[in-house]
Amino acid sequence: MRFINFKASEEERLGVLSQDGTLAIELSSIKLSKSFVDMNDLIKNISDCDLEVIKSTLSENTRRSFAAYPIDEIKLCSPIKRPIHDIICVGVNYKAHLEEAKAGFDKNSFNKTNKTVYFSKRAAEAIGPDDTIISHADIDEQLDYEVELAVIIGRRGVNIPKEQAEDYIFGYTVINDISARQLQQQHNQWYRGKSLDTFTALGPAIIYKSEIPFPVELNIYSRVNGELRQNSNTKHFIADIPSIIAEISNGITLEPGDIIATGTPSGVGLGFNPPRYMKSGDTVECEIEKIGVLRNIVK
Amino acid sequence: MRFINFKASEEERLGVLSQDGTLAIELSSIKLSKSFVDMNDLIKNISDCDLEVIKSTLSENTRRSFAAYPIDEIKLCSPIKRPIHDIICVGVNYKAHLEEAKAGFDKNSFNKTNKTVYFSKRAAEAIGPDDTIISHADIDEQLDYEVELAVIIGRRGVNIPKEQAEDYIFGYTVINDISARQLQQQHNQWYRGKSLDTFTALGPAIIYKSEIPFPVELNIYSRVNGELRQNSNTKHFIADIPSIIAEISNGITLEPGDIIATGTPSGVGLGFNPPRYMKSGDTVECEIEKIGVLRNIVK
Repeated sequence: MRFINFKASEEERLGVLSQDGTLAIELSSIKLSKSFVDMNDLIKNISDCDLEVIKSTLSENTRRSFAAYPIDEIKLCSPIKRPIHDIICVGVNYKAHLEEAKAGFDKNSFNKTNKTVYFSKRAAEAIGPDDTIISHADIDEQLDYEVELAVIIGRRGVNIPKEQAEDYIFGYTVINDISARQLQQQHNQWYRGKSLDTFTALGPAIIYKSEIPFPVELNIYSRVNGELRQNSNTKHFIADIPSIIAEISNGITLEPGDIIATGTPSGVGLGFNPPRYMKSGDTVECEIEKIGVLRNIVK
Repeated sequence: MRFINFKASEEERLGVLSQDGTLAIELSSIKLSKSFVDMNDLIKNISDCDLEVIKSTLSENTRRSFAAYPIDEIKLCSPIKRPIHDIICVGVNYKAHLEEAKAGFDKNSFNKTNKTVYFSKRAAEAIGPDDTIISHADIDEQLDYEVELAVIIGRRGVNIPKEQAEDYIFGYTVINDISARQLQQQHNQWYRGKSLDTFTALGPAIIYKSEIPFPVELNIYSRVNGELRQNSNTKHFIADIPSIIAEISNGITLEPGDIIATGTPSGVGLGFNPPRYMKSGDTVECEIEKIGVLRNIVK
């Protein structure tokens, strides 16, 4: 099941993609025990029984009585439009990216304790597939991309043991953790350089956890104007998903709808010599196996 | 006008304090053009006309027809229980605190660009007056206090000019930016050490901006077990409120209900030699002139 937010006839709707990805099926046309105002509501309140109903609806593989739109006739939106809290980000979580970041950044930006780095990214509103990234070139010309696997929390919890981490996950999506590199360094803490408007792109869909075997091993890529820039697999995480969930929830209550960005592999613009930042007119694609492609254009 | 959230007969209510601070007046008992579900709703939607009605109700200084509770018969709650986004924090904003922080921390934690440091503090739920701070001593024994003036944003805006900053403010409250110092340093970025459950204390009230002359010059104090620890005035800010609002809103849309913590003066536990951290059983009081005292007990 890949949950989506989409616009058809100017109206925003919750839906699921058909198994072949060619149809957007409106959730309200499937007979569920309740309706949902938005994706955050769905994540928090959908029952196992309703999940089963959706699953069997999709496996029937026919249009039948539900409202289905051809995918090229709708506009996909960010699956979560207004995150309930700032996005919890893991700073450097692939070894090769740690090396390129150390080379490109002030070395003092990285600590010597080998502890996982956590920071947050404000996203009053997240952008979705085909939405425009504002370059903010007047503030910072070093506009960078970072493809990451985003974990969506499904259940409230604190002090979650590693072994139970998967129980607290709702699903996964792709995030482009867009970054203004000068701001990120100049202000010492990364928050401002990570939080400019349109710097959080999510989508195209949230895949339900049961469709991704645990531990999560998915190919992850990014391309700028069609050129492959990042190419890795989430099996190369320094801290794996259970470790991240166990550590960040140690003393901090996670809530349904929380988004954890698990870090980016090497190949970001900062990592090239000279750096290769994005500029107005560029197309950036972030892709994760089984989830899909998140494409945005820089304005 | 000092807006409050309070509990009377087990029910949470929005209110205002009487001018002498002895009565909590229930907002729903004042004839306003609309009602509000919570403080975030009020901040976003209250009209100038309704503000005038409240103001004149308070100046009448009688109980009359509205519901008023003696302050010692109610429980004050956090004025904003669920912040709409993570709290935007200014890292070091008083010169004397910068010096003590440099001495107590790894010097590399501070940059050389003299740019204001911004970070964020997750608070799924903020605690209020007399609520318990969980020490989390099992995670970090270096539990510290930081009294700060919190600016509450009242109007949506981006790229706000300094000269217009006050127009975007709703009011002010006191925040205790409770910090786990080891986590703050070990994880390099400060987010995790600032975001443990109960680490955001707000209150006792949000004072409406019209009651505080601009620029804001207020005495600010903290005490631990009655002993004065911090004692300064917000006129000693390195970056003043208009500068902070102008810079953070440069490329980042602020929304009504956003909370900006403006930094803490010197005298935090970390600043003593040897450091004087809080421990279970301690009482910490944060006070700002005209707003009130925010008292919490460490568990």
